[in-house]
Amino acid sequence: MNLILLFADDFDAHGHAILRDSRRLDHICKVHRAKLGDTLRVGLVDGLMGSGEIIAMDGQLITLQVSLTEPVPPPSNIHLILGLPRPPMLKRTLQTIAALGVKQLTLLQSARVEKSYWQSPQLQPQKIHEELLLGLEQGCDTQFPTIHTAKRFRPFVEDQLPELIQDHDALLAHPYVTTPCPTSTNKPTLLAIGPEGGFIDNEIAMLSEAGFTGVTLGRRIMRVETVVPYLLGRLGG
Amino acid sequence: MNLILLFADDFDAHGHAILRDSRRLDHICKVHRAKLGDTLRVGLVDGLMGSGEIIAMDGQLITLQVSLTEPVPPPSNIHLILGLPRPPMLKRTLQTIAALGVKQLTLLQSARVEKSYWQSPQLQPQKIHEELLLGLEQGCDTQFPTIHTAKRFRPFVEDQLPELIQDHDALLAHPYVTTPCPTSTNKPTLLAIGPEGGFIDNEIAMLSEAGFTGVTLGRRIMRVETVVPYLLGRLGG
Repeated sequence: MNLILLFADDFDAHGHAILRDSRRLDHICKVHRAKLGDTLRVGLVDGLMGSGEIIAMDGQLITLQVSLTEPVPPPSNIHLILGLPRPPMLKRTLQTIAALGVKQLTLLQSARVEKSYWQSPQLQPQKIHEELLLGLEQGCDTQFPTIHTAKRFRPFVEDQLPELIQDHDALLAHPYVTTPCPTSTNKPTLLAIGPEGGFIDNEIAMLSEAGFTGVTLGRRIMRVETVVPYLLGRLGG
Repeated sequence: MNLILLFADDFDAHGHAILRDSRRLDHICKVHRAKLGDTLRVGLVDGLMGSGEIIAMDGQLITLQVSLTEPVPPPSNIHLILGLPRPPMLKRTLQTIAALGVKQLTLLQSARVEKSYWQSPQLQPQKIHEELLLGLEQGCDTQFPTIHTAKRFRPFVEDQLPELIQDHDALLAHPYVTTPCPTSTNKPTLLAIGPEGGFIDNEIAMLSEAGFTGVTLGRRIMRVETVVPYLLGRLGG
C-alpha cells in the first residue's frame, strides 16, 4: 500500500478523512508503523493525490488532515483485450493492470477459455473492485480501470470492435508471425492477448479481418501475468 | 510445462529418454493426456529442443524416442542485478527470468533488504534449480541461468562491478530521475533494480559512481515481479 486510497464517504463535515476499516488501520499501524503527527501518502478515488497528516488515532479509527494537490500519473493509452485467464491469474492480472495504469480491460471468451471460468467468484464486481484497489494502492493511482466482459467472441468482434478500433492501432500478440512487436507507441492502442494456449486459428483470422496486426514476441511462451507487464513495458503506452 | 526438459541421465544405452519421476509423468499423463504414439515437445538441458515420441508407457515410466534439431531461442543480453526480494517474490522472479531468457542474475544485498531473507530455504541451490526449471519449461528454453549472490553491497560494487561493466551499458531503475528508460537495446546491459522500497541514496551514489545511469519508469511504483518483465519487455534484450 504505497498510497492510502480515500473514498468520498471517508470524509466528515470538517473535511477530515476518518478511517475505520481494519484493512487500512492495520496497514497504517503495522506496516507503516505510523504515529500521531506522521504524514501518509494519500489519494482520493478519481481525484488528486497528496498527503494526510494523522491528527487523531486510537485503536478504532484514524483521522487524517488531508491535502490533495498532486495529479495522478498519466494513464496508459492501451486498451487491453485479454482471453479470460483462470481465476488465480485473473486476480493477479487485475492488480497488475491497475498498478500499471491501464484504464480499459476487456475480458474475452475464446475457444481455449474454460466456460467454468466465467462462473468464478473472482468475476463478481466486488472481487474485481478489491483487486483493482490493491493495484491502485501499489502503483499510486486513484482512477479505477473499467473492466468489460465479452462472453461471446464473434459478437464482440463483429458488433463492438469496429467502433473500439476507430483511431486506434490494433495489435495481436501472436507467436506464429514474424512482425516484431513495436517498441513504444504514442497512439491509443488495442492490444489483444490470447488465453492460455492462445487464440485458435479461426479467432486469429477474425481479429485480423477486424484490423488487428499480429506481432510476435519471439519464441518464448509467457504466462499471462508475465506477458501483460512485458508488453506494457515494450509499448510503453 | 510447454517443454519437457530432459537431463543427460534420463537417457539409456539406446539413446531413449526414460522418465520415471512423478512430476513429469503426472504432467504428461494428466495435463497433456498423452497416449502411446503421441509426440511431446522436449529439450535437452544445455542442448537442442525437438520432439519426443512416446514409444512405451506404463504407470511407472515413459520411454521417449527423441529427435533434437531445434536451437533454443536467443538468450537475453541483460544481466539483471536485483536487490534480494522477499522469498515468495524471489520464487516467482526466478521462474520469470528463466522463462524470459535471462542468463545472468545477481541477487544483491542492500540496506532495505531484510538480513533474514538471506537465510531463506528459497536460496538453497536445489530450490533455485527447481524454480529455474519451472521457468525454462514454461518459456521453452534449455539453458539454465546462472544465479550469483552478493551478500555485501560495497564489496560487490567496488570489486566485482568494474569487471562486469566492461563493454556493457549499465542502467539503474530509479524513480527520482527524469531520464526515461530507453526502449530496446542491442548491447549487453547490466540492469540494476532495487529491493522493495528502493536502493538508499548512498547505494545509488555508489552505483552512479561505478558507471550506472539512472532511468525512470515514471511515477508508478511496481512490484519486483511486475517491474522485471516490464523492463525486459521495454529493453527487449
